[in-house]
Amino acid sequence: MPPSPIRIEEKFGLFSDRWSPRVVAELNDYQVKLARLEGEFVWHRHDETDELFLVIGGTVEIAFRDGTVRLSEGEMLVVPKGVEHCPRAQEECRVLIIEPRGVLNTGDAGGDRTAEADVWI
Amino acid sequence: MPPSPIRIEEKFGLFSDRWSPRVVAELNDYQVKLARLEGEFVWHRHDETDELFLVIGGTVEIAFRDGTVRLSEGEMLVVPKGVEHCPRAQEECRVLIIEPRGVLNTGDAGGDRTAEADVWI
Repeated sequence: MPPSPIRIEEKFGLFSDRWSPRVVAELNDYQVKLARLEGEFVWHRHDETDELFLVIGGTVEIAFRDGTVRLSEGEMLVVPKGVEHCPRAQEECRVLIIEPRGVLNTGDAGGDRTAEADVWI
Repeated sequence: MPPSPIRIEEKFGLFSDRWSPRVVAELNDYQVKLARLEGEFVWHRHDETDELFLVIGGTVEIAFRDGTVRLSEGEMLVVPKGVEHCPRAQEECRVLIIEPRGVLNTGDAGGDRTAEADVWI
Protein backbone atom coordinates (compact mmCIF):
# COMPACT_ATOMS: atom_id res chain seq x y z
CA MET A 1 0.00 0.00 0.00
CA PRO A 2 1.24 3.53 -0.72
CA PRO A 3 1.60 5.93 2.23
CA SER A 4 -1.57 7.62 3.45
CA PRO A 5 -2.35 11.28 2.93
CA ILE A 6 -2.86 13.37 6.05
CA ARG A 7 -5.74 15.81 5.84
CA ILE A 8 -4.92 18.68 8.17
CA GLU A 9 -8.46 20.03 8.64
CA GLU A 10 -9.79 16.52 9.27
CA LYS A 11 -7.18 16.02 11.99
CA PHE A 12 -8.07 19.34 13.65
CA GLY A 13 -11.67 18.11 13.77
CA LEU A 14 -10.58 15.33 16.10
CA PHE A 15 -9.52 17.43 19.08
CA SER A 16 -10.47 20.72 20.67
CA ASP A 17 -8.13 21.32 23.60
CA ARG A 18 -5.62 24.15 23.48
CA TRP A 19 -1.84 23.97 23.90
CA SER A 20 -1.77 20.18 23.49
CA PRO A 21 0.07 19.32 20.29
CA ARG A 22 -0.99 16.16 18.47
CA VAL A 23 1.46 14.28 16.26
CA VAL A 24 0.12 13.59 12.76
CA ALA A 25 3.27 12.43 10.93
CA GLU A 26 6.95 11.67 11.28
CA LEU A 27 9.72 12.67 8.89
CA ASN A 28 12.81 10.69 9.89
CA ASP A 29 13.23 11.63 13.57
CA TYR A 30 11.14 14.80 13.26
CA GLN A 31 7.46 15.07 14.11
CA VAL A 32 4.73 17.10 12.48
CA LYS A 33 2.26 18.27 15.11
CA LEU A 34 -0.99 20.19 15.06
CA ALA A 35 -2.00 22.46 17.92
CA ARG A 36 -4.79 24.84 18.85
CA LEU A 37 -3.52 27.95 20.61
CA GLU A 38 -5.63 30.42 22.54
CA GLY A 39 -4.66 32.85 25.28
CA GLU A 40 -1.10 33.28 26.48
CA PHE A 41 1.43 30.49 26.87
CA VAL A 42 4.61 30.56 28.97
CA TRP A 43 7.99 32.00 28.13
CA HIS A 44 10.35 29.16 27.25
CA ARG A 45 13.15 28.10 24.95
CA HIS A 46 14.32 24.87 23.32
CA ASP A 47 18.05 24.59 23.87
CA GLU A 48 18.59 21.69 21.49
CA THR A 49 16.53 22.58 18.45
CA ASP A 50 14.90 25.11 16.17
CA GLU A 51 11.10 24.97 16.03
CA LEU A 52 8.95 25.62 12.96
CA PHE A 53 5.48 27.16 13.18
CA LEU A 54 3.12 27.34 10.20
CA VAL A 55 -0.26 28.97 10.72
CA ILE A 56 -3.16 26.95 9.30
CA GLY A 57 -5.92 29.27 10.53
CA GLY A 58 -6.25 32.35 12.71
CA THR A 59 -3.50 34.57 14.02
CA VAL A 60 -0.82 34.07 16.64
CA GLU A 61 1.70 36.47 18.07
CA ILE A 62 5.03 35.04 19.06
CA ALA A 63 6.73 37.29 21.54
CA PHE A 64 10.52 37.42 21.75
CA ARG A 65 12.56 39.41 24.25
CA ASP A 66 13.38 41.89 21.47
CA GLY A 67 10.07 42.13 19.64
CA THR A 68 6.89 40.35 18.64
CA VAL A 69 6.09 38.59 15.37
CA ARG A 70 2.50 38.33 14.21
CA LEU A 71 1.66 35.32 12.01
CA SER A 72 -1.51 34.65 10.08
CA GLU A 73 -2.72 31.86 7.79
CA GLY A 74 -0.05 30.78 5.32
CA GLU A 75 2.76 32.36 7.29
CA MET A 76 5.64 30.49 8.83
CA LEU A 77 8.34 31.19 11.40
CA VAL A 78 11.40 29.29 12.58
CA VAL A 79 12.21 29.98 16.21
CA PRO A 80 15.97 29.47 16.54
CA LYS A 81 17.20 27.10 19.20
CA GLY A 82 17.93 28.64 22.54
CA VAL A 83 15.80 31.71 21.86
CA GLU A 84 13.13 32.53 24.44
CA HIS A 85 9.64 32.96 23.06
CA CYS A 86 6.05 33.11 24.21
CA PRO A 87 3.11 32.43 21.87
CA ARG A 88 -0.17 34.31 22.42
CA ALA A 89 -3.43 34.15 20.51
CA GLN A 90 -6.35 36.47 21.23
CA GLU A 91 -8.67 34.11 19.39
CA GLU A 92 -8.04 30.48 18.63
CA CYS A 93 -5.22 29.87 16.18
CA ARG A 94 -4.47 26.55 14.51
CA VAL A 95 -0.81 25.84 13.86
CA LEU A 96 1.38 23.14 12.41
CA ILE A 97 4.63 22.63 14.31
CA ILE A 98 7.70 20.68 13.21
CA GLU A 99 10.51 19.73 15.56
CA PRO A 100 12.46 16.62 16.54
CA ARG A 101 10.60 13.77 18.24
CA GLY A 102 10.30 14.19 22.00
CA VAL A 103 10.44 17.98 22.26
CA LEU A 104 8.16 19.31 25.02
CA ASN A 105 5.88 22.30 24.38
CA THR A 106 7.21 24.22 27.39
CA GLY A 107 10.90 23.57 26.64
CA ASP A 108 13.11 24.59 29.57
CA ALA A 109 10.23 26.15 31.51
CA GLY A 110 8.34 22.99 32.48
CA GLY A 111 5.37 23.52 34.79
CA ASP A 112 1.70 22.74 34.53
CA ARG A 113 1.34 23.88 30.91
CA THR A 114 3.57 20.99 29.82
CA ALA A 115 1.66 18.65 27.53
CA GLU A 116 2.45 14.99 27.10
CA ALA A 117 4.82 14.46 24.18
CA ASP A 118 4.27 11.99 21.36
CA VAL A 119 0.47 11.94 21.46
CA TRP A 120 -0.76 10.93 18.01
CA ILE A 121 -4.07 11.68 16.42
CA MET B 1 15.68 41.53 16.00
CA PRO B 2 13.19 38.68 16.26
CA PRO B 3 13.17 36.09 13.44
CA SER B 4 11.32 37.07 10.27
CA PRO B 5 8.00 35.55 9.22
CA ILE B 6 7.95 33.75 5.87
CA ARG B 7 4.87 34.46 3.78
CA ILE B 8 4.35 31.43 1.56
CA GLU B 9 2.19 33.09 -1.11
CA GLU B 10 4.58 36.02 -1.33
CA LYS B 11 7.48 33.62 -1.91
CA PHE B 12 5.58 31.78 -4.66
CA GLY B 13 5.10 35.15 -6.35
CA LEU B 14 8.87 35.40 -6.81
CA PHE B 15 9.35 32.47 -9.20
CA SER B 16 7.40 30.71 -11.90
CA ASP B 17 9.49 27.78 -13.13
CA ARG B 18 8.35 24.24 -12.47
CA TRP B 19 10.22 21.44 -10.70
CA SER B 20 12.83 23.82 -9.27
CA PRO B 21 12.47 23.89 -5.49
CA ARG B 22 13.38 27.13 -3.73
CA VAL B 23 14.56 27.10 -0.13
CA VAL B 24 12.64 29.50 2.13
CA ALA B 25 13.75 28.40 5.60
CA GLU B 26 15.98 26.06 7.54
CA LEU B 27 15.06 24.09 10.63
CA ASN B 28 18.32 22.75 12.08
CA ASP B 29 19.77 20.78 9.14
CA TYR B 30 16.43 20.50 7.35
CA GLN B 31 15.21 22.80 4.61
CA VAL B 32 11.74 24.05 3.84
CA LYS B 33 11.30 24.40 0.08
CA LEU B 34 8.56 25.65 -2.19
CA ALA B 35 8.02 24.18 -5.64
CA ARG B 36 5.66 24.53 -8.56
CA LEU B 37 4.81 21.18 -10.15
CA GLU B 38 3.19 20.68 -13.54
CA GLY B 39 3.28 17.70 -15.87
CA GLU B 40 5.04 14.46 -15.00
CA PHE B 41 8.32 14.19 -13.15
CA VAL B 42 10.69 11.19 -13.12
CA TRP B 43 10.54 8.05 -11.02
CA HIS B 44 13.10 8.31 -8.23
CA ARG B 45 13.77 7.55 -4.61
CA HIS B 46 15.73 9.13 -1.76
CA ASP B 47 17.73 6.39 -0.09
CA GLU B 48 18.79 8.43 2.93
CA THR B 49 15.66 10.28 3.95
CA ASP B 50 11.90 10.59 4.15
CA GLU B 51 10.41 13.52 2.23
CA LEU B 52 7.42 15.60 3.30
CA PHE B 53 4.99 17.15 0.81
CA LEU B 54 2.30 19.62 1.84
CA VAL B 55 0.01 20.97 -0.87
CA ILE B 56 -0.43 24.75 -0.73
CA GLY B 57 -2.58 25.01 -3.86
CA GLY B 58 -3.81 22.76 -6.66
CA THR B 59 -3.64 18.99 -6.83
CA VAL B 60 -0.75 16.57 -7.31
CA GLU B 61 -0.76 12.84 -7.76
CA ILE B 62 2.19 10.98 -6.33
CA ALA B 63 2.54 7.62 -8.02
CA PHE B 64 4.08 4.71 -6.15
CA ARG B 65 4.79 1.27 -7.59
CA ASP B 66 1.77 -0.07 -5.66
CA GLY B 67 -0.73 2.76 -6.10
CA THR B 68 -1.23 6.47 -6.50
CA VAL B 69 -2.02 9.07 -3.85
CA ARG B 70 -3.89 12.22 -4.80
CA LEU B 71 -3.21 15.29 -2.67
CA SER B 72 -5.04 18.61 -2.66
CA GLU B 73 -4.71 21.84 -0.71
CA GLY B 74 -4.18 21.25 3.00
CA GLU B 75 -3.13 17.65 2.51
CA MET B 76 0.24 16.22 3.38
CA LEU B 77 2.20 13.08 2.62
CA VAL B 78 5.46 11.65 3.89
CA VAL B 79 7.26 9.58 1.26
CA PRO B 80 9.32 7.03 3.19
CA LYS B 81 13.01 6.82 2.43
CA GLY B 82 13.98 4.37 -0.25
CA VAL B 83 10.48 4.26 -1.75
CA GLU B 84 10.20 5.00 -5.47
CA HIS B 85 7.74 7.70 -6.40
CA CYS B 86 6.82 9.94 -9.29
CA PRO B 87 4.86 13.19 -8.85
CA ARG B 88 2.47 14.31 -11.59
CA ALA B 89 0.22 17.35 -11.81
CA GLN B 90 -2.27 17.89 -14.62
CA GLU B 91 -2.45 21.56 -13.74
CA GLU B 92 0.07 23.53 -11.77
CA CYS B 93 0.31 22.52 -8.14
CA ARG B 94 2.17 24.46 -5.45
CA VAL B 95 3.81 22.40 -2.75
CA LEU B 96 5.90 22.86 0.35
CA ILE B 97 8.60 20.22 0.76
CA ILE B 98 10.68 19.47 3.84
CA GLU B 99 13.78 17.30 3.78
CA PRO B 100 17.39 17.48 4.95
CA ARG B 101 19.68 20.10 3.41
CA GLY B 102 21.29 18.99 0.14
CA VAL B 103 18.69 16.49 -1.06
CA LEU B 104 18.29 16.59 -4.85
CA ASN B 105 14.84 16.62 -6.42
CA THR B 106 15.57 13.61 -8.64
CA GLY B 107 17.11 11.48 -5.86
CA ASP B 108 18.83 8.38 -7.26
CA ALA B 109 17.58 9.02 -10.81
CA GLY B 110 19.67 12.07 -11.71
CA GLY B 111 19.34 13.28 -15.29
CA ASP B 112 18.31 16.55 -16.85
CA ARG B 113 15.38 17.15 -14.49
CA THR B 114 17.82 17.57 -11.62
CA ALA B 115 17.53 21.07 -10.16
CA GLU B 116 20.31 22.83 -8.34
CA ALA B 117 20.06 22.26 -4.60
CA ASP B 118 20.14 24.97 -1.97
CA VAL B 119 18.70 27.78 -4.09
CA TRP B 120 17.08 30.28 -1.74
CA ILE B 121 14.33 32.71 -2.49
